[in-house]
Amino acid sequence: MPAPVDPTFPLGDYPRREDDVIERIAHIVGHANIPKGERHIGDDAAVLAPIVGQTVLSTDVAVLGVHLDAGLFPLEDLGFKAVAAAVSDMAAMGARPRACVVAVTAPLGTDLEELHRGMADASTVTNCPIVGGDLAQGRDVSVAVTVVGECPGSGAVYRSGAKPGDELLVTGALGRSSAGLRRRREGAGLNDELVVAHRRPWPRLAEGMAARGARVHAMMDLSDGLGLDLHRMADASAVGFELRQVPVADGATFDEAVGGGEDYELLIATNDAARLRMVFHDRGLREPLTIGEVVAATDHRTLRGEEFGRRGWQHQL
Amino acid sequence: MPAPVDPTFPLGDYPRREDDVIERIAHIVGHANIPKGERHIGDDAAVLAPIVGQTVLSTDVAVLGVHLDAGLFPLEDLGFKAVAAAVSDMAAMGARPRACVVAVTAPLGTDLEELHRGMADASTVTNCPIVGGDLAQGRDVSVAVTVVGECPGSGAVYRSGAKPGDELLVTGALGRSSAGLRRRREGAGLNDELVVAHRRPWPRLAEGMAARGARVHAMMDLSDGLGLDLHRMADASAVGFELRQVPVADGATFDEAVGGGEDYELLIATNDAARLRMVFHDRGLREPLTIGEVVAATDHRTLRGEEFGRRGWQHQL
Repeated sequence: MPAPVDPTFPLGDYPRREDDVIERIAHIVGHANIPKGERHIGDDAAVLAPIVGQTVLSTDVAVLGVHLDAGLFPLEDLGFKAVAAAVSDMAAMGARPRACVVAVTAPLGTDLEELHRGMADASTVTNCPIVGGDLAQGRDVSVAVTVVGECPGSGAVYRSGAKPGDELLVTGALGRSSAGLRRRREGAGLNDELVVAHRRPWPRLAEGMAARGARVHAMMDLSDGLGLDLHRMADASAVGFELRQVPVADGATFDEAVGGGEDYELLIATNDAARLRMVFHDRGLREPLTIGEVVAATDHRTLRGEEFGRRGWQHQL
Repeated sequence: MPAPVDPTFPLGDYPRREDDVIERIAHIVGHANIPKGERHIGDDAAVLAPIVGQTVLSTDVAVLGVHLDAGLFPLEDLGFKAVAAAVSDMAAMGARPRACVVAVTAPLGTDLEELHRGMADASTVTNCPIVGGDLAQGRDVSVAVTVVGECPGSGAVYRSGAKPGDELLVTGALGRSSAGLRRRREGAGLNDELVVAHRRPWPRLAEGMAARGARVHAMMDLSDGLGLDLHRMADASAVGFELRQVPVADGATFDEAVGGGEDYELLIATNDAARLRMVFHDRGLREPLTIGEVVAATDHRTLRGEEFGRRGWQHQL
């Protein structure tokens, strides 16, 4: 969106004009092989070939200093994490990402190329091309990523479908991202395994599509921590739960596993866990971990018989 | 996207938690009649019924203080303008908007409900439902709007298709938005006709779809001003142009018409202007105005024989 200014705005007086910056960024994020019939960066909007089945749409914004500590991590991590978080919402629905667009604000002098390199990396590993974007000046570095995806075959999986008696599973042990942030604060290097888990979250796209294929009842990604997201699934489904265990990742604490967030493992409710395990096995995916089961009483929410309260990250607004 | 924090973040210690704010905002932006098979706000992602033909995707970000002067205009105008600008990109392709998602950053204490009321208004008048969003804390109030649209029938119109001999037309006289900003600065009320043109831009959706139906060669919206956007079309099409006139809106100056931006009228190149006029007439649309023609020499860019240089808004980055 353009800013309203005096019409005689002197072009060329500034070190970097929008058109010039966009041209350089397009080289970083653009794909060499654009499918026939598609048009990516460079017009008023991107054009995609027809989407198969339901269209799935999600947006996610990340702000430097809020979502990433600029003193501990390079700027490219903000780009990577923003794209990965948005793509993870596709995994949560069992959708396949088709494309994303990125809207960036930044103060003068920000290394926009580094920021976009991080986005391009996440775009590549998740096979979700960046097909357009927008840039504006602001005091914060912020990245808003919107992903469009598709659900061929069966429909998207909602968080609201959990039913009493369903088994609850997660796609991996929890707390890695939060533990990585702690380790980085304690001085660990950027390539420390847990620090990498924090910097380079991996959306569980294959797992999400496999779970949709296995017709699970409910699914969501653990972006804000099991201690908050499980309650959200229970609220949306009007059910309660009995947890038997919380799988804590190596190197993480129990609190980090419950409340840390940003693990992006999937939380799944199904009445046929055997089928889910078989589909995961057939596709070479890691076996999902049973954590408990769904119960009818909405206010019954326990871990090994003790009350399991809400805890996790919420923005102050 | 969640922020990485200590897992023991104390919920309820703050005046407004994210989930509570989202629930209130969902009442403001949500639609009562969600089509069967669709799911809007409330899950990890929105789900839309199948999109017809090409999918068109565009994102646009607006920042308070950059795109809107908070001292002159209410906050809801930022929301309205952000959505309208993003929807206008659909008009520019000849697409029909299907849905949008909105990602907002704001400092503590921002009136998020007023901001979202402006978005909801623009969403209603453009028939583009807000189906999802994200919120995060930041120093700036910023709104990133992403619209997904569809092109049933013939394909989207690009800015790159202008050919020598084509007639150049615009869908309306120019400079209204810029003149409105000037008038507001001079003390005009918020309901002054030109001030309203600045506050409540109107995407030319019907005109864009009509032009696509008339198989025009090239199209774009005038978001940054004719003095910049016409050059962008000429660059993308590898052509030049000879302008005969710039239609200046009542109350606007020539400079505002050329360089002001934010008018969101459409710029069209076609080799069959008679057909375009007929289609517009049949659909009850205002007659488009011829401003000149396309020529082969890429560096030949004139207005009534004089060189017509680039001028308009570009962000500093």
